[in-house]
Amino acid sequence: MIVTKEQLLKFCFEVFTACGMPNDDANLASEVLVSADLRGIDSHGVARLSGYIRLWEAKRANLQANPKIIYETPSTATIDADAGLGLVVAPYAMKVAIEKARQVGTGWVAIKNSNHFGIAAYHAMMALEEDMIGFSMTNASPLVAPTNAMERMLGTNPICIAVPAGKEQPFVIDMATSNAANGKLEIAQRENKSIPLGWVQTETGKESTDANELKKGGALMPLGGHKGYGLGAAVDILSAVLSGANYGPWVPPFVSFLNPLPNLPGQGIGHFVGAMRVDAFRPKEDFKIHMDNWIQRFKEAQRIDPEIEVLIPGEPEFRMQQERSINGFGLNQNVANDLLDLAKKFNLNL
Amino acid sequence: MIVTKEQLLKFCFEVFTACGMPNDDANLASEVLVSADLRGIDSHGVARLSGYIRLWEAKRANLQANPKIIYETPSTATIDADAGLGLVVAPYAMKVAIEKARQVGTGWVAIKNSNHFGIAAYHAMMALEEDMIGFSMTNASPLVAPTNAMERMLGTNPICIAVPAGKEQPFVIDMATSNAANGKLEIAQRENKSIPLGWVQTETGKESTDANELKKGGALMPLGGHKGYGLGAAVDILSAVLSGANYGPWVPPFVSFLNPLPNLPGQGIGHFVGAMRVDAFRPKEDFKIHMDNWIQRFKEAQRIDPEIEVLIPGEPEFRMQQERSINGFGLNQNVANDLLDLAKKFNLNL
Repeated sequence: MIVTKEQLLKFCFEVFTACGMPNDDANLASEVLVSADLRGIDSHGVARLSGYIRLWEAKRANLQANPKIIYETPSTATIDADAGLGLVVAPYAMKVAIEKARQVGTGWVAIKNSNHFGIAAYHAMMALEEDMIGFSMTNASPLVAPTNAMERMLGTNPICIAVPAGKEQPFVIDMATSNAANGKLEIAQRENKSIPLGWVQTETGKESTDANELKKGGALMPLGGHKGYGLGAAVDILSAVLSGANYGPWVPPFVSFLNPLPNLPGQGIGHFVGAMRVDAFRPKEDFKIHMDNWIQRFKEAQRIDPEIEVLIPGEPEFRMQQERSINGFGLNQNVANDLLDLAKKFNLNL
Repeated sequence: MIVTKEQLLKFCFEVFTACGMPNDDANLASEVLVSADLRGIDSHGVARLSGYIRLWEAKRANLQANPKIIYETPSTATIDADAGLGLVVAPYAMKVAIEKARQVGTGWVAIKNSNHFGIAAYHAMMALEEDMIGFSMTNASPLVAPTNAMERMLGTNPICIAVPAGKEQPFVIDMATSNAANGKLEIAQRENKSIPLGWVQTETGKESTDANELKKGGALMPLGGHKGYGLGAAVDILSAVLSGANYGPWVPPFVSFLNPLPNLPGQGIGHFVGAMRVDAFRPKEDFKIHMDNWIQRFKEAQRIDPEIEVLIPGEPEFRMQQERSINGFGLNQNVANDLLDLAKKFNLNL
């Protein structure tokens, strides 16, 4: 099924409002979701729409949430997301961070009592138009085993850093702290292909090339071994121990058919976002000249294969976004069926 | 040669002061260097003392530097290190960050015109006794090739995050953004052992198991492929594009026998440090209770091998530090010879 950006935005909006979400929030949530598809991160786009709705049906997500600042200093805040969608509360938190950065140079916001926030890049990239460097990270349902452990203790806990440039496109790194994101496993499962060693381990902690290992009780493995474990753990701590959300194995699962554990130590899942004014460190124009120079120099790095470019982080997603915004793009059949089911359920056209 | 902490501190101090470094700076630089040996990061400890001295002899490091804040906001500052040692200016910058965090919740400092700062952990861990989360990172001499490139464009650009706990030891992740730190290659070279694929590539960009590949013109490979390239690049940008230091392939080499490139875009090497008060987000006591709970739960994660513990980041270094501080430790013969040469040169006893 070939779809356009506008079509998907409209459909998501209609689904969210059909569930009672206020128009502004529904618009924003739709924009965040569809931005993932446009950037080519299909696992975090409309493929998840039905999952968010099921969380609402299970009364685990509040679509009429009223997030509030519950703690703050001139450069920080903690937000209680009121069990809303991260899709909505993370942009709200970024606005708070940006306003604090305007006042005192930087702003940092920890969020508790939230749900999945979509792609990290959307939120961090909000800082770019303000000539700020944006940061966003989140914890997530436990799928990753720490080094030497066979138990799932961490989510794929992504980190995004977005840096503005002058004439060049911004630098945007948005990466899971596991070797492979769950989306890549799903593709291998669908195509019935084996996966590289290092992505997953079996239920008893042995490395495996079977893409179905996670379903059989195994775990994802952290990026590059113990370093990825440390990074993912740091994301968990900043997102949840700092905010008062659940952490580690207690992070509530995204899928509605699994219940949260009993005796939770916090509320919902946690995020952490930040914004730093570049002109809190040096004049904006100087920064942009050197950022452009940085980007140009890295693009000109000697290639291993003359036919294969050295890319700047964010460049593949930016190209995909340009192309998909103009030409539309194809939805995977499972995702299309999922959306058609939603259309039927809420009596909508897709 | 078996040495004690006190012996090494005294010797480093005497070498630095013999080169005209003021007593306070010499004390601090010695403490930072020796802290690396105590933590078991031998590649960043007294093994580098002669390297710092050679940089001073080559007039590339100023041992009487007077670092200055050249730009600031309530939560940020940029420091010109006056070509001093990072060993001294990074702790100075952390003090500035900590003072800003006291005032407005967080403090972030970019440093230019500096030299190698030793282990990242020393600086980030300064935040711990203030009940703050500490961050430190630095760029470094180019050794790492971006994905698809055969050229060395980035240093091993480490990131450190240090988080205070209550009764438990703090959480400290201190990691290079390459798959292997240079120190690990040196050990394999010394022992004439092959190394795992993924650590280095040849001069023409092919993966290799030869520990000598770097010396033959090859490059280190980024942690887990393109993600490590992105992380190392982000460290470079925060440390140098933000501060006005040199970045990418222009970062001046640590070794004094290689000259910096002509037409440098900045000054010296760059660092970036930060401090966040935990009670800028939630009451300190709550944070500590949950941080202790986080640590205890991760230590209890189901093990793959019942004999092999699941460790908290920073735990191995903490144990090493306790043991080495009490019992002393052995210096590698090359390092010992290096120190004996310095003793002779400056007419000192070791």
